[in-house]
Order: sequence, then C-alpha cells, then structure tokens
Amino acid sequence: MPKAALIGGGVIGGGWAARFLLNGWDVALFDPDPQAERKVAEVLANARASLPALSDVPMPDEGRLTFASSIENAVEDTDYIQESVSERLDLKHKVYTEIQAVTPNTPLGSSTSGYRPSQLQEGATNPASIFVAHPFNPVYLLPLVELVPSAVCAPGTIGRAKEILRSLGMYPLHVRKEIDAHIADRFLEAVWREALWLVKDGVATTEEIDEAIRMGFGLRWGQMGLFETYRIAGGEAGMRHFLAQFGPCLTWPWTKLMDVPEFNDDLVELIAGQSDAQSGHLSIRELERIRDANLVGFLRVLKERDWGAGRVLLDHDASRRAATPDPTPDSAGPLVMAHMQVLPGWIDYNGHMTESRYLFASSETTDAFLRFIGAGMDYVAAGHSYYTAETHIMHLGEAKLGDRLTGSVQVLGADEKRLHVFIRIEREGEPVATLEQMLLHVDMTAGRACPAAPAVLARLLPIAEAHKTLPRPAAVGRHVGQRKT
Amino acid sequence: MPKAALIGGGVIGGGWAARFLLNGWDVALFDPDPQAERKVAEVLANARASLPALSDVPMPDEGRLTFASSIENAVEDTDYIQESVSERLDLKHKVYTEIQAVTPNTPLGSSTSGYRPSQLQEGATNPASIFVAHPFNPVYLLPLVELVPSAVCAPGTIGRAKEILRSLGMYPLHVRKEIDAHIADRFLEAVWREALWLVKDGVATTEEIDEAIRMGFGLRWGQMGLFETYRIAGGEAGMRHFLAQFGPCLTWPWTKLMDVPEFNDDLVELIAGQSDAQSGHLSIRELERIRDANLVGFLRVLKERDWGAGRVLLDHDASRRAATPDPTPDSAGPLVMAHMQVLPGWIDYNGHMTESRYLFASSETTDAFLRFIGAGMDYVAAGHSYYTAETHIMHLGEAKLGDRLTGSVQVLGADEKRLHVFIRIEREGEPVATLEQMLLHVDMTAGRACPAAPAVLARLLPIAEAHKTLPRPAAVGRHVGQRKT
Repeated sequence: MPKAALIGGGVIGGGWAARFLLNGWDVALFDPDPQAERKVAEVLANARASLPALSDVPMPDEGRLTFASSIENAVEDTDYIQESVSERLDLKHKVYTEIQAVTPNTPLGSSTSGYRPSQLQEGATNPASIFVAHPFNPVYLLPLVELVPSAVCAPGTIGRAKEILRSLGMYPLHVRKEIDAHIADRFLEAVWREALWLVKDGVATTEEIDEAIRMGFGLRWGQMGLFETYRIAGGEAGMRHFLAQFGPCLTWPWTKLMDVPEFNDDLVELIAGQSDAQSGHLSIRELERIRDANLVGFLRVLKERDWGAGRVLLDHDASRRAATPDPTPDSAGPLVMAHMQVLPGWIDYNGHMTESRYLFASSETTDAFLRFIGAGMDYVAAGHSYYTAETHIMHLGEAKLGDRLTGSVQVLGADEKRLHVFIRIEREGEPVATLEQMLLHVDMTAGRACPAAPAVLARLLPIAEAHKTLPRPAAVGRHVGQRKT
Repeated sequence: MPKAALIGGGVIGGGWAARFLLNGWDVALFDPDPQAERKVAEVLANARASLPALSDVPMPDEGRLTFASSIENAVEDTDYIQESVSERLDLKHKVYTEIQAVTPNTPLGSSTSGYRPSQLQEGATNPASIFVAHPFNPVYLLPLVELVPSAVCAPGTIGRAKEILRSLGMYPLHVRKEIDAHIADRFLEAVWREALWLVKDGVATTEEIDEAIRMGFGLRWGQMGLFETYRIAGGEAGMRHFLAQFGPCLTWPWTKLMDVPEFNDDLVELIAGQSDAQSGHLSIRELERIRDANLVGFLRVLKERDWGAGRVLLDHDASRRAATPDPTPDSAGPLVMAHMQVLPGWIDYNGHMTESRYLFASSETTDAFLRFIGAGMDYVAAGHSYYTAETHIMHLGEAKLGDRLTGSVQVLGADEKRLHVFIRIEREGEPVATLEQMLLHVDMTAGRACPAAPAVLARLLPIAEAHKTLPRPAAVGRHVGQRKT
C-alpha cells in the first residue's frame, strides 16, 4: 500500500490526510500541536460523510493513519510528502532541511498559497524534488490542486506527482510560469481587497457581499469559469463582441485600484462582528457539513452531465474500475451485478433511503445485467431495448446514509421476448428489498415487442437454464396484500 | 394580468422577457434591432427548457409577448418598466425622457452594470421613479438582482419594485449606498483585470484560468460567499483567526495593483483566440444549454437543502402555492393530490423518465395524501408514520422531459393499521403508470405496526368508505406476469 507523509495537520493538512486515507493510502502525519489528533479526526469524520458520496465505484479500504513523533519518523519509507505548515518561508525551509536529510528524492509538495517554488527551494539539499501543490479547502472534495514547478524541478518528479494527485481524484493544474500566489489566489486576493473596502466604506455588510456572490456569479463559476461565461455573455457574436463591449470599462473607476485598506483592529472587529451576525448561529462544524453537502450535490450534478469537475470524478471512477475489474459473476447462483452506496440525495428527512431509491437500486442492477448479456447502451442506441412492464416490490428493511448495498439478479424465466427476474437489494447479506419484474424486449422505433438479437439470447438463455435449479423465492407471484404463506 | 415594458431585447433584455413571461406577466418589448424578435425567441426557448424545472408548483400560464413599434407604445398601461439598452449614459437619458413623457410614475429599473442611480436620474422628468435593477445572466435562472436607489427615490416605488422582483422568483439585494458598479461587478472587474494580466503575461491561458476557477473556489462560491467560506477556513478559531493569518498578505505583491493592461488589438486577439481553442467546438447556444442545465442542477441541490439561492426558490414556491391553494379534492372520486413536471434529473439518456421516478411520483402523491389526512411531517416528527410494505407497478406509457403529470389516490381499503391504495400517474388524463400499495402504520420508536391516531382515522375512514363505491381497477390484485383478463 502506498504511503504519504504529511507535515502539518491543520485544516489543510487534515484535508490532505482525508484525501489520501480514503483513497487507500497509509498516512504518517507530523504536527507538534497537541490538539492535532482530535482536529484531524474531525476533518476525517466530515470527509467520510461526504467523499464516498462522489464515487460510483466502491471505495478502497481506508488506509492507516499514524501520528509521527518527528518529521524524521514521518517521512521514512514514503512515496509522497506534502508540507502544510504556516506561511513562513523560514519555517518551510527548516522543515525541508529536516525532510531531505532523511529522504532527498521523495516528491515534496508544498500547500503554500503564495510562495513561488524557487523561493521554497532556496538552500535545499535537493531543490529538484520540491514543488508547489496548492490545494483548496475542503481538500477532500475540491479537485483543484495547482502544481507549480520551477525550472530546476525534475520532470520525472513532476510527472509522478501529477499521477499521484490524479489517483486521489484531484485535478492537477500545471502552472507553467511561477508567480506569487500562482493563479487562483490572485483572483481571491483581488476580490478580498475589494470586499474589505466595501465593508470598511460601509457600502455592504459581509452578509450582503456573500449574497451578491452566491445568488449570482458564484453559481456560474462553479461550472464554467470567467472566459467561457463571458463568451456566452457576448451573445451570438461571442468573445470578440464581449471584449469590444466591456474592454473599455477597465479604465473606469469601478475598483479601488491603487489602494490597500489599512488592516487594523477596527477593520478586524467590523468584519468579525458582521460575520458573527451573519453565520454565528451555526458552529464551524455545522457550516462545514452544510458546505460539504452542497459541494457533493454540485459535484454530482456535474458528474451526471460529464462536465467540468464532474468529468474529473468520472475519470477517477473509470481508472479505479479499470484497476479492479468486477469479477465475472458466477451464473450458478443469483448474479451480483451492482455495488452501491446510499448517497445524500437518496435519503429523506428521517435519514432513511426514500422509497423510490429501492427501485432505483434495482434499475442499476438490471442495467448492469443487461450490459452483461450484451444489451447495454450500444444495443439501445441501435434501436432495441428491454422495457419494464410490471414490478412487484417487497420493502423489508431500511437502508441509511452511507450503507453499502449489493444488487443481484435471479432469472425466473426468459424467452425470445420476455425476461422475468427477481432482484435482491441487500445490505451485509440481508435483503432490504426484493423486486420481481417482467421486462419486454422492444423495437423502440416500431414501439412494439420483438425477439431479442441472437447474440443477446445466446448469453441470456443459458443463465435462465442454470437458474431453473435455484429455489423459487417466496415473494414470486405475490400480489399486494396477499397473506404470507 | 400584470404587464411589463422592456426597452432593449439583447441577452439581458431577452432574459428579463423570459423571467416575466414565464411568471405569468404580459410583456411589451421595444428594440429597434430587426433581429430582436428572433433573438428574444431563442432566449425564451432556453428559458422554457430550464426555468420550469426549478419549480415544484405548477407554473402560471405564460404571459403574452408583443413587440412594440416605439418606446411610447411599449410603456403604455404597464406596471413595471425595465431598461436594458447599451451602457451609454446619453442613450439611457434619452430613453428615460421618452418613457416619462408617457408615464412618469411607473417604476423604472435599469439593468446598468456600472452607472449609479443619481447619474441615471440626471435631467429626468421624475427622478424619484428611476433606480438600478441590475440582473445577472442568465436572467431567467440566476436570482440576484442588485436594487440600488438614490436618495431621491420614492420609498414606495422601491418597495413595490422589490415586491415585483420577488414575485418573479428573484432575490433583490438592496444596495444601501450607491457606488460605481454596485457590488458584484466590482468583484468581477477585479478578477477580470487580474485575468487579463495573466493571459497577457503568458502565465495562463483562458482555459487554464477557467479551470483554476471552476475546479476550486467557483464551487464554493455557488453556495457560500467569500466571508462565510473564510469563516470556515479559519477552522475552529473562526473569522478572527482567519483575518489574523491572511490579513497581512494584502500588502504582498500578489496582484497587479497599480496597473491596468493596455486594451489593444493584440490582447483582444490573444484572448479571443485562446477562447476559440477552449470553447469553439461548441456553439454559443450549446454552451448556453449546458450552462442552464448545470445551473438548474445546482439550484435544485440548494433547494433540496433549503440553502442560499435554493431558499429563494422555496419561498417563491410557497408564495405561489399560497396565492393559488390546491382545491380541496373531492372525496367522491380518486383524489388528485399531486401536480408534477418531469425534471431534467428524472430522465435517462434516451430522454424518457427513468423507471424509479414513476415510484417517486407515486411517493409524492402518497405523501400529499398523508398530509391531507393529518399524517404529515409533524406527525412523523412525533414518532408515527405510514411505511410502504409492498408495491405493484404497471408501466403503461413513457413520460418525457417537461411533461406535466398528476398523481391521484384511490383508497382500496383501510383499517386502524393498514392503508391499501391505488395510485394513478397520468399525463393529460392518460395513465403512464399505476401503482397498488399496502402501507402499514408504525410506531417508529418501537419499530412495529400500531393503530393510527384517532384524528387521522377520522379523516381517512370516511374517504375509504366513499371510495368503496368506485370501480375496482383491473390491475388490483395482479401478480407480475399474470395474463390480462
């Protein structure tokens, strides 16, 4: 199992720990803060409640977390090192010296928001293995990591770092030219400065500013960035029209170009007081959980649409699926066709899986079975499909958020046009629901039943034959309200 | 029916037209562009494919759109006027003079991105009725509208404008102090300036910049703004800790504070060329539809969680539901309990409603029925609920995106503990699915069946009695695969 060393266990270091551990890496973490263990455990609890909800592939077994007593102990025998200590260059240099005294060649990423890699490398034993890997909070959910090498970085090290970060489901953005604050934080800094002026000048409160962001352009920026958004805003004439229209505004007095507000106690109190009024009714942990649930929702939306950050998730699933292919199911018994986990969008206000999601889990299982017998997407695209005509559901248990479910198929009967199946949705071997279904093979253009393709029947009929020997489930042939026999 | 006059029918004016029309307002639009009708029709088509998907209350009948031959004709007998012409102050003044020659007291909002209301009011017949109402593209989906009055504005006019904008499902953010570019565009301007420098200096391409936004902080800003996000980033110590940590960075050389890049043809070509390479494989209309689907997804996520922009949608639904209460269903026949529309998240890759959504539509119907007999959320919170034990579904038709569905309940039988129902999910009076269900009344704490509360039975049993006279549907008592009789 691969192993990462993390130096610093604050909000960012803890987020890295969660990212690595939940993706199956062992982690050795060093942080002199006596509270570090508790803090990391809390970040990890948040991550466990959200990150798995992004995956449609079973998560790997969680890695082992150890707290090291020193930097030396932490970095021994590791494949990757990430430094997330405070933003003080002298401190970072000291940490790198200690690390590289033990292991000078291990890829060593820094979470720095502002320093350039060349600055980080000053005086290092091996500058070539030090680079910026700047993530965004919450590290366990947001895919972006700015990967910034300097000219002296070993290309092999950077390539390896990218590979590792991708294997964690992240999106390493290779920043080709090192500058202070890389790319994203330049924008955050510019917005932050304007926001401080607006608060200081009494134009808007922190809450009004937040609404101005999240009710409008914030929603746009979660799925397209600045330029693609403006390309659309130009209307049919596109980007050049937009530039012609808005380019000149740059010299208008819209922003406080020349000034930096004085950062004194008065300003701190003004902002902190307004922030308390806005968000103080929720604890930081509550806010984190709300944020995480929202981000999971956004990311799932994008994943459904194969767009932006959602595409990163799909790629990550695909690479993990390729690494651990589903075992060929054994046709002698019911075929386990689907592995699922109960996602936040599947539960009701009581925390139970909603009724319709049992049928959804069954559909996922049947879809996997249809792919297995050669009647998947390509078959449908060519004009034929199996349609469900009739379903009977027995609700036998309650699945809850995070539960891992399996879906299996027992073929009760099959001929050229009909497919009669029994689906079990199980949690730890116990059924939470069973479903009996009759599917019809249809010509989608003609809109009527027709025989399935010979290749499909050649896969289906032997399974039906083999399943004839299986015991017939008691629920088969039941009608609603029938007395149990 | 209320009526709005819109002056200017570009991307923004067209978006306003969609917002008003789909919320049941009549609209008179004036735009001298001979292409205006076609362009507005295209924006309207996008809006019709997305805005209704945000609503869980039936949309009102769409208003009537007319194209006026002059400003004078457009503004006659209207309740609200919105100006969305080009950002030229002299042009805006000329438009206001023409408007106010006809109707000086009608609320007159301007879509201006940058001008202050005092500037807009200069030389006006009635300055008191002119204000800034600055929306964000796409106007039909994003709730934010910055409402900026000047000191001379009539408070009654501003109050009325807020009311109207809220009735359109928007979030009017009252900007209390007028400044150039209001609030949100100051941030957009600051980010835009930084982005132009990054492109010009060859640090990043337009695509890399967009990824730096949408893979990271853009996702955060769609659900919390700047300050609430940073409050969390401070960890347990909150806002003051964050400020102490990052405040000093303001004076670091992270942003190009002092300069504005020269906006010449070279820069335009550089940006437009990179934008073509990034997004040119998709037409503007395709990009718009992708954006709209993503935004609908985000907004539905927030609506499910009663958070941010989602709360605006919930409030809008609630106010429309209160304005047109569901008629008390007539217990003599099957009770029509739910009106639904097939949403983008309900369909599969073929554009058909997915199998599990028929059960979902049925659950919505049953839930409404349970509320109707007094076994709603409060009843559940107090520890009792009806659980579905068994379901039989007949799939009879295919619902498609945007179809309007109704769900009705016929009570087949009921006693103290059991509720046996037949649900019809219909489109234009034809069933797309029918469901037979047996529900059990349970004590959720004890985890076993128990008699329902007397108040619930007092509502339920008379309905069951009345429904005894209804014909028994043929599908009742069927088992899967049974021959049709």
